[in-house]
Amino acid sequence: MNNVQGQVAQMLEGNQVALARLLTRVEAEDNATGEVIAAIQPRLGRAHLVGVTGPSGAGKSTLVDRLTAIARSQGQSVGIVAVDPTSPFSGGALLGDRIRMQQHYLDPGVFIRSMATRGSLGGLSRAAFNAVKLLDAAGKDLVLLETVGVGQTELDIMGAVDTVVVVLVPEAGDFVQTMKAGLMEIADIFVVNKADRDGSRQVVGELEAMVEMSPKLPWWHIPVLATQGHHNVGLDHLAEAIQSHRRALEESGEMNRRRRVRRRREFMRILEQELTQRLLQIMSSDGTWANTLSRVEQGDLDPYTAAQRVLSDQAPLKGALSAD
Amino acid sequence: MNNVQGQVAQMLEGNQVALARLLTRVEAEDNATGEVIAAIQPRLGRAHLVGVTGPSGAGKSTLVDRLTAIARSQGQSVGIVAVDPTSPFSGGALLGDRIRMQQHYLDPGVFIRSMATRGSLGGLSRAAFNAVKLLDAAGKDLVLLETVGVGQTELDIMGAVDTVVVVLVPEAGDFVQTMKAGLMEIADIFVVNKADRDGSRQVVGELEAMVEMSPKLPWWHIPVLATQGHHNVGLDHLAEAIQSHRRALEESGEMNRRRRVRRRREFMRILEQELTQRLLQIMSSDGTWANTLSRVEQGDLDPYTAAQRVLSDQAPLKGALSAD
Repeated sequence: MNNVQGQVAQMLEGNQVALARLLTRVEAEDNATGEVIAAIQPRLGRAHLVGVTGPSGAGKSTLVDRLTAIARSQGQSVGIVAVDPTSPFSGGALLGDRIRMQQHYLDPGVFIRSMATRGSLGGLSRAAFNAVKLLDAAGKDLVLLETVGVGQTELDIMGAVDTVVVVLVPEAGDFVQTMKAGLMEIADIFVVNKADRDGSRQVVGELEAMVEMSPKLPWWHIPVLATQGHHNVGLDHLAEAIQSHRRALEESGEMNRRRRVRRRREFMRILEQELTQRLLQIMSSDGTWANTLSRVEQGDLDPYTAAQRVLSDQAPLKGALSAD
Repeated sequence: MNNVQGQVAQMLEGNQVALARLLTRVEAEDNATGEVIAAIQPRLGRAHLVGVTGPSGAGKSTLVDRLTAIARSQGQSVGIVAVDPTSPFSGGALLGDRIRMQQHYLDPGVFIRSMATRGSLGGLSRAAFNAVKLLDAAGKDLVLLETVGVGQTELDIMGAVDTVVVVLVPEAGDFVQTMKAGLMEIADIFVVNKADRDGSRQVVGELEAMVEMSPKLPWWHIPVLATQGHHNVGLDHLAEAIQSHRRALEESGEMNRRRRVRRRREFMRILEQELTQRLLQIMSSDGTWANTLSRVEQGDLDPYTAAQRVLSDQAPLKGALSAD
């Protein structure tokens, strides 16, 4: 049994150090990532994967804390992955992690991991997908994936979960109006947090109107909940809504459909990455293709035409496939 | 001459309506995108492409406005692309655009375009690359690419330009310390804007210390400039630094190197996307590969193992290449 298999076996027995080491591996996307994921594949699919996203300052971390406490009180184990794609500028996740750690530090039923770009610009989304899988395989009943930030990467990351909670604040009225399509695309549950502030009712009303105006799903009606994370108001309703969504996903068959789509997308992404690396190697070493690449690099040939040429000639790809 | 060729010809003659229509095409990534880019390829490389990025509230739009005014006073034409990857939640770019439009609306030497995700989660980075190219081909002397937001997508987008200006504010001290690597990775010029506020000198000092501690480039010393966009203080120095950076890029040969790297990355991204689409088509229609894909979708086979299998068999790829 090699090192990876040994670590996976230890993790499946509940060893938290092994889990932490495997998370570090998939976060760094080291060579063993594929072996790790292959080894845990049979253990996947048990956990409820829940994403929490929204603009910074919306109080997501507090909500995640409260949801964790509720799940623990019901005897569920919890894994938390906090991802901060904005970290080259903000550093928010790191701080949030430290604050949270104090609260749940001594509870072995809660495992917390922060991920940030830390200067490397690629792979954060893949790393988040794999981290969620590890926590699922490790037997957590509930996996909470929190994204600190509101950009495209965060929305991609939300593709990793079954249930997406979008957290807004009462001041959000203007952009709720502007960004209807984007919000409706990802939200399974809306939360207006800090609901003791002015404007809360209005934003709840706007979100409810937006939900009413959107095409209806036969199996789920998107709820709009008001919470006050810091005062522990509305959290039980949120926890119930999350559990209701899971039941609705399962009873309608939508859970299977979503997971199939997710697995297909993930597979295509991995295939894409691997294939491109091989192609680039071949194109750099083969004379004809090195020439095409060189002309693209010099700006003599546009990338779209060059891509058509590569794809209309089978030779370089056959090389890419027989390599390795 | 078809529609695309006609529009490109009109754009090259200075027709702003044709430019706007071509921008809409590449932003929507319609089928003609490749043809548009191929048609303008011989006209690329003249403009100085300058990116302005940093956290929201740093005053980037004001700096872009001031830099535009300076360039205009020197007889340069200016193209501005403002990209907001956070738009599903913020909608900031749209508002900023309207404010700017009022100032430069009647100046035919300034062309302004805003881009936002508007609910679609893919392609914003590619669209920004292509928009910058169109403005370059249209003969703009200076192209300013502003990203409203601070995530991974914005950093990817900065890969489209020659010179990157990172704008911070005096309150930024904490995350400058936390995020050294990320900042140093992309910045050619640092600006501390709103420098009349408390803490300005300290942040300038911290950035200067960070630059001093980093590996030196033989051809460029990263300057740290203090500006007050709203009071028009320090803007001439910033405009000079941007022009100095261009000269240093050209004299050192670094301009060619950067542009080669950029073209290669862009090409690989296009190739990747095209190849993956073809593969997926083949895999869905071919019995054996449909079976592999189906097992991945059902979770019976992990995506890494499946990718290895696809890549070790040449048949589906040969199919993908002879299709189309």
